[in-house]
Amino acid sequence: MKKKTATEEGRKEEKIGMKYKRKNFSKWFSEVIAKTELADLRYKVKGFLVHRPWSVLAMKRMYEFYEKEMERFGHEPVWFPVVIPEENLKKEAKHVEGFSPEVMWVTETGCGKKLTEKFALRPTSETAMYPMYAKWVRSWRDLPLKLYQSGQVWRYETKATRPFIRGREFYWIEGHDVFATLEEAEKQVREDMQITENVMHVVYGIPFIQIQRPEWDKFPGAIHTYTADTLMPDGKVIQQPSTHLLGQNFAKAFSIKFKDRDEKEKYVWQTCYGPAIWRMFASVIAMHGDDRGLRFPYEIAPVQVIIIPITGLGEEKRVFKKCKEIAEKLDKSNIRARIDFSENTPGWKFNQWEMKGVPIRIEVGPKELKARSVTLVRRDSEKRHRALEKNLIKTIDRAGKDINKKLRTGAEGFLRKNVREAKDLKELGEQLKKGGFVKVDFCSIDIEGLPCAEKIKDKFHAQVRGKRFDKAERPKGKCIICGKPATCVAYVGREY
Amino acid sequence: MKKKTATEEGRKEEKIGMKYKRKNFSKWFSEVIAKTELADLRYKVKGFLVHRPWSVLAMKRMYEFYEKEMERFGHEPVWFPVVIPEENLKKEAKHVEGFSPEVMWVTETGCGKKLTEKFALRPTSETAMYPMYAKWVRSWRDLPLKLYQSGQVWRYETKATRPFIRGREFYWIEGHDVFATLEEAEKQVREDMQITENVMHVVYGIPFIQIQRPEWDKFPGAIHTYTADTLMPDGKVIQQPSTHLLGQNFAKAFSIKFKDRDEKEKYVWQTCYGPAIWRMFASVIAMHGDDRGLRFPYEIAPVQVIIIPITGLGEEKRVFKKCKEIAEKLDKSNIRARIDFSENTPGWKFNQWEMKGVPIRIEVGPKELKARSVTLVRRDSEKRHRALEKNLIKTIDRAGKDINKKLRTGAEGFLRKNVREAKDLKELGEQLKKGGFVKVDFCSIDIEGLPCAEKIKDKFHAQVRGKRFDKAERPKGKCIICGKPATCVAYVGREY
Repeated sequence: MKKKTATEEGRKEEKIGMKYKRKNFSKWFSEVIAKTELADLRYKVKGFLVHRPWSVLAMKRMYEFYEKEMERFGHEPVWFPVVIPEENLKKEAKHVEGFSPEVMWVTETGCGKKLTEKFALRPTSETAMYPMYAKWVRSWRDLPLKLYQSGQVWRYETKATRPFIRGREFYWIEGHDVFATLEEAEKQVREDMQITENVMHVVYGIPFIQIQRPEWDKFPGAIHTYTADTLMPDGKVIQQPSTHLLGQNFAKAFSIKFKDRDEKEKYVWQTCYGPAIWRMFASVIAMHGDDRGLRFPYEIAPVQVIIIPITGLGEEKRVFKKCKEIAEKLDKSNIRARIDFSENTPGWKFNQWEMKGVPIRIEVGPKELKARSVTLVRRDSEKRHRALEKNLIKTIDRAGKDINKKLRTGAEGFLRKNVREAKDLKELGEQLKKGGFVKVDFCSIDIEGLPCAEKIKDKFHAQVRGKRFDKAERPKGKCIICGKPATCVAYVGREY
Repeated sequence: MKKKTATEEGRKEEKIGMKYKRKNFSKWFSEVIAKTELADLRYKVKGFLVHRPWSVLAMKRMYEFYEKEMERFGHEPVWFPVVIPEENLKKEAKHVEGFSPEVMWVTETGCGKKLTEKFALRPTSETAMYPMYAKWVRSWRDLPLKLYQSGQVWRYETKATRPFIRGREFYWIEGHDVFATLEEAEKQVREDMQITENVMHVVYGIPFIQIQRPEWDKFPGAIHTYTADTLMPDGKVIQQPSTHLLGQNFAKAFSIKFKDRDEKEKYVWQTCYGPAIWRMFASVIAMHGDDRGLRFPYEIAPVQVIIIPITGLGEEKRVFKKCKEIAEKLDKSNIRARIDFSENTPGWKFNQWEMKGVPIRIEVGPKELKARSVTLVRRDSEKRHRALEKNLIKTIDRAGKDINKKLRTGAEGFLRKNVREAKDLKELGEQLKKGGFVKVDFCSIDIEGLPCAEKIKDKFHAQVRGKRFDKAERPKGKCIICGKPATCVAYVGREY
């Protein structure tokens, strides 16, 4: 009901911009989604979102960047069916145990005719893809096999759903790679982290910490899980793309074998990688937004430049003509521009497009016509510049790059400031109140550390996220819970 | 079983190219899909296809062109849920009657827990989208509303499924447009045909005939249906993108109303448009292919240029280096190039990439190094050219455009040759044996013409497809079936 109200409010108060400040994060998040028309929550199936053009245009760009990078790192695209026969889903014991409770089943067709075997709507695609991998992989010559697909998966979540963060239908990419050796599979984990860095951090502007998950919190069926953890503005932790080192668990369950150079038949080694465009979009909204609304990084903005005609008496025709000229020029340089020809006042338009997060605004009026220039206003800094028409493309390109950098740097600063340390349980409690990650000396992220993690969970409703994957951080003393010698520095935080 | 055999044969005989000639179309089609690794039919759910990279790379390009054109004509992208509550699906009587038999139902979650309301996997999205349209459209200011989405739909076909032609899961775009007046909706039908022309014909090289479907063969819930009908090499008719003039049927069922300029509340007028990328891909395979395999139009080829190193004794290093240089150069000009570094012989590689339909092959050997040139071979004409390295990009661009034109012109010629006329029933039978369309004087494509259409169907297993939409063709005499005065020239053909 709350969500519905926010949307309706969006309708009524659209004209006066955002009502909630970003520090009131939960309300701000719902409001910005409704008012900027990213999504509509009023579809009649719970946990399923209607995505409106303003979010789809951005996510399409996000997909493009991600897919390009996946391909640059040697992956090729595939499309697998969205349904998985029950028999396949059941083949890997841990996997079926992990996913079964959330599966949505297709059991009937037509007017009530029962299917002989029911199909799962894929909650993830291992069990759809790996039976085919068993057919495709025969020899060492077929390896590595690196495939990805873009699409949706469905999980009937019982936890509260939130748009772009947790839903019953979400949009992602899944990469499924097969290797001849464990070493190559381990190398792929690092490569996947590099892809996350190159796209999520560099392009989307979302910094993260590389974490190896504890034994008790890994992907069902994996040996190890590695994730990109980052923060939301309220200090809560959100898991972004993760890679799972599957080892040979699925290879054995699905009989994926190859004849090696030595003529011996061996099981393959596998990894899978799941960058969720949907969740990364949540981070883009949340991390870059401000009290006035969205702020899109230039590269992924649905509209990069909004052109606003400022029309004096009798100047309308000339001003409109100039706006169109500029829009065409930008279009030719592959800059996504739009002109706001609506009947609203310039002030209303400024607010509207600021709220919608367009990185650059161009104002064209009689003054500008005369000076053969335009006024350029940046969404990130709200600073006004004059730009000569002849230098316009160059000016925009430069501003665009700088906007991306500024947003990214801002997010980095926020993340850096919100990694704290605690020497004991009391300090952990205090630090957790501030939000963000808290680093503590910890006994182990192997299974024997679980009781200590559970104590932290019970006491503070916080999770042991794991230890750093990209570097070894040496603990200074003993586990802050059990007092045994610490083997690692664990990152603790409250999860989304 | 037949399909499986073709795939297995593909595996065994890959090295010696195609076994079937294209005139043996049905076998050729199955073989080319298996041998060029477009898709794998061995997934365990009937009618669901596993799409391998070679088809996905092409269809991704096809989507890009189509989406861009949809947007240029004023559509914006949305993503709606893939599930539709049963209640929504039932709102438009004709629509539910048409689609119910083929719907796949989600009825359970987790370990056998029944849902209180079952959900349909969308067979098409009218009933998902229009309840939201009713919320979004309030005033004439909100119109026109033109949205599209790319994705899959699911229909539990009982007819035989064929890859890319008829399946239980298929890939398409659906456009759903809303207008204030019938005139605007009618104009949209013509615009949709223009989009089909600009993309399917001009870019994919598939010509078509604009047909208005008979009353008895329109989309469930529509007033009229207009389609782009084209032919397959065996002379059978295949329906490509169609637009449905929905009138106010759905507007009334879903209560989509707006306050007009005159302050009166009115129902909207609607159209929907369904270009199926999947089916158009079938036409691309079939229409442009030849006895040696696929021939991709340059613009949508997964790989546009394949570079083959021809290595003499001791020249390997220099040749490989040159190949890489060329590939980088092409990459910088956004030409999709790949080098075949495999251990196979050049002859084997030539055959392989010819079969896979790569438009341009570049051969680089010691001879070429010396002359600072490359040998360029076109897939369409099999002609060899020398190209100076410094002119390479220009030469490729020109060749690419020319390949597109040649393939398109070839397809146009085939379609033109296969439109015949018949003056009486006997002649109709003879002409239908030759395949293609046969034009006959016909009483009416309104409902009163149905008995005559059924006679044609019974006698010849052929359908009355409808009459021309783009131009009025005057009948010369009487209906060839009932002898009443003909009101139109009908196109008759055997359908896929």
